[in-house]
Amino acid sequence: MANKRLGSQTVQLQNDVVIISTASIVGPKEGKGPLSEYFDKILQDDLFGEKSWELAESKMIKEAMKMAIAKTSYMMNDVDYIFSGDLLNQLMSTSFAVRDLKRPFFGLYGACSTMSESLSLASMIVDGGYSDLVLAGTSSHFSSAERQFRFPLEMGYQRPLTAQWTVTGAGCTVLSSKGEGPKVKRITTGKVIDKGIKDPNNMGAAMAPAAVDTIKTYFDDTKDDIDSFDIIATGDLGKLGMDIALDLIKKEGYDISKVYTDCGVEIFDHEKQDTHCGGSGCGCSAVTFCGYIYNKLINKEFNKIMLVSTGALLSPTSTLQKQSIPSVAHAVVIQNY
Amino acid sequence: MANKRLGSQTVQLQNDVVIISTASIVGPKEGKGPLSEYFDKILQDDLFGEKSWELAESKMIKEAMKMAIAKTSYMMNDVDYIFSGDLLNQLMSTSFAVRDLKRPFFGLYGACSTMSESLSLASMIVDGGYSDLVLAGTSSHFSSAERQFRFPLEMGYQRPLTAQWTVTGAGCTVLSSKGEGPKVKRITTGKVIDKGIKDPNNMGAAMAPAAVDTIKTYFDDTKDDIDSFDIIATGDLGKLGMDIALDLIKKEGYDISKVYTDCGVEIFDHEKQDTHCGGSGCGCSAVTFCGYIYNKLINKEFNKIMLVSTGALLSPTSTLQKQSIPSVAHAVVIQNY
Repeated sequence: MANKRLGSQTVQLQNDVVIISTASIVGPKEGKGPLSEYFDKILQDDLFGEKSWELAESKMIKEAMKMAIAKTSYMMNDVDYIFSGDLLNQLMSTSFAVRDLKRPFFGLYGACSTMSESLSLASMIVDGGYSDLVLAGTSSHFSSAERQFRFPLEMGYQRPLTAQWTVTGAGCTVLSSKGEGPKVKRITTGKVIDKGIKDPNNMGAAMAPAAVDTIKTYFDDTKDDIDSFDIIATGDLGKLGMDIALDLIKKEGYDISKVYTDCGVEIFDHEKQDTHCGGSGCGCSAVTFCGYIYNKLINKEFNKIMLVSTGALLSPTSTLQKQSIPSVAHAVVIQNY
Repeated sequence: MANKRLGSQTVQLQNDVVIISTASIVGPKEGKGPLSEYFDKILQDDLFGEKSWELAESKMIKEAMKMAIAKTSYMMNDVDYIFSGDLLNQLMSTSFAVRDLKRPFFGLYGACSTMSESLSLASMIVDGGYSDLVLAGTSSHFSSAERQFRFPLEMGYQRPLTAQWTVTGAGCTVLSSKGEGPKVKRITTGKVIDKGIKDPNNMGAAMAPAAVDTIKTYFDDTKDDIDSFDIIATGDLGKLGMDIALDLIKKEGYDISKVYTDCGVEIFDHEKQDTHCGGSGCGCSAVTFCGYIYNKLINKEFNKIMLVSTGALLSPTSTLQKQSIPSVAHAVVIQNY
C-alpha cells in the first residue's frame, strides 16, 4: 500500500516542499484591478514588444520563470524540471518559452486548472526526492484566448453577462526541498466531472461541480477543520460559479462560506472594469496565487490556504459537435507551519 | 541533494514500478501493417461507431484504458491516477474519455512524446509511494489530426515525400508497485530543442536533434552500456529523421546503430502502404510500445529497452506566424531484470 495516501484522492507530503519564490506578470487591465499592488510587473502594452499576442504570452511566462529564479540564490541551470502549460493549442506559449531555458520540461494541459496541476506534480517530485528545485507555472492572455476560443476581437462581439474575462497574466513558483517559505502539505487530485452544461459562455456553472467534488473529497479524506484555513480559493469560477459552488458544497454538509473566495472574483473590480462574472484563464489563479496569496503567506497574514484551480476542458471543436463541458479541479494545501 | 538523481537529467527508480498490463487499439490501416499481430484490437472502421473522428479517438483511448485494467486483477476504481493526453486542441480525446472513468486525472501535452511523458510521471508517482496503481496512455487519429493540423481530407491534398502518416491508435499501460512484468528503471526527461527547422511536413528532421540530445544525455548521465539494450526505439522520427538521428548521435560519440529503431518506421510497410517517411502521432509510439515491444518483453525476446517518444511542439498558429518547430523527447528505460 502506497504510504503517503490519505483517503481516496489525497496525498500527504512527508518532506519539506518549500515555495521559496514566486513571480507574477500581468497585463494593463489586471494592473488597474484591486490586486495591482501584489504583482511583480504590470505591462503597459499587452503585446509586450512582440509581433503577436501568442508570442507576447510566451514572453510573459518565460520572464515570470526567469524572475522567480532571480529572486532566489539559484540559477536557471539548477532547475531540474519545469512543469507548465497554457490555454493555447499545442501549448504554444509554454513550448516556445521553455526552449530558451534549456531545462527538462513536462508539458501540462488542465485548462485553467494548470496552476494547481503543476504545483501538485512538482510537489510530489520534490517530496519524492527526484529533484531539489522545480518550476511550476502557467499563463493566459485575453487576446490570444479570445481569438482562439471565441471571435476575432475586431468583431466587437457583445459578451453575455455570464461570460468571464480571460486574465492576461503569467505566474511561476519555485519549489525546493529546502529554504524559507510556505510549504505544500497536501494534494487532492480532481476527477473530470461533467454535469451536462453546454454553454461555453457560462463556464463558472460548468466548473463549479468539479471544484465542489474536489473540496468535498479533501475534507472527506482528511477530516481537516474548515476553520483552520485562512482562505480556500477556487481558480476562476467567477461570481455566478462561486455562488453555485457555495450552494452545492453546503448541500454536501460543508459550510466553507467564512473562508471561501474565488481568484476570478478577486482579480477585477467587476462593476468598474466591466468584466461581468469575473476573471478566468490559467493566468487568473496563477497571478492571484503568485501575487496576492503568496504575499499574504509570506507576511503571515495567511498561515494556511487551499488553492483549487478549476479547468473547463472544452474545445471549440467539442462545442461545435454539441458536447457538454467536462471540468476538473485540483486542490493544493499550503501552510506556514 | 535529491537522492534518486543520476547526472544532470536522469532519475533512477528505487522501488518496483511494474508494467503489469498494456492494451492497444489501432485503425484499419495500422491493422494491415507489419505489427498487426501484436495489437489487442483492430478497428474495421475508423469512426468506431461514433459521429466524429474526435469522438472515435476519445472512445479508442477510453476502451484501451478499460481493456488494460481488465487484463489485471484490479478494477478501474482501484486506479489512483490517470496520466494521459493527445494531439487534439485542449486534449479533447482524453478529456472526454476520462470523464466516464471517474478517477483523478493529470492532463499532459507533449505532442508525440506523450507516451514516454506519461510513463515518466506515472513511474515517479508509483516509485515515490504516492500510488500503487496508475494508468499512463495516449492516442492519436489520422483523420482528426489531418483536419486539425493540415487540410480537410476531402481536399485530396498531395503529401510531400518527407511527410509522415498520423497513426490511428491508442495505447495504455498499467503501472503498479507490485506484480509481474517488466519494470521501469530509469527516466531521462528531455529539454525543448529547436534547431530552426520550419517545415511542418518534415517533422522527423525537426525532432531528431531532441531525440539525440535525450539519448546522449542518458548515456552521459548513466555511463550505461549501449550493448546491454535489445532495442532503443524513438517515437516517430520516420525514415528520414531516423537517419539524421543516427548521424547526429554518432557525431556525439555514441554508435547505437545495432540496437536502434523508430516506432514510425516499424508500424507501416512504407512501400506497400504509401506512408512516405513513416508513422507519427502520439499513438505511434503508444501502440508500438503497448503492442509490439511490451509483447517481446513479456516473452523475454527483449530484456532491456529504451523508449524515446519524440514530440514536435508546433501549432498551426506558430507555423502561420513563421516560427520554427521546438521539439522534445523523453526516455524511459524498461527491464525484465
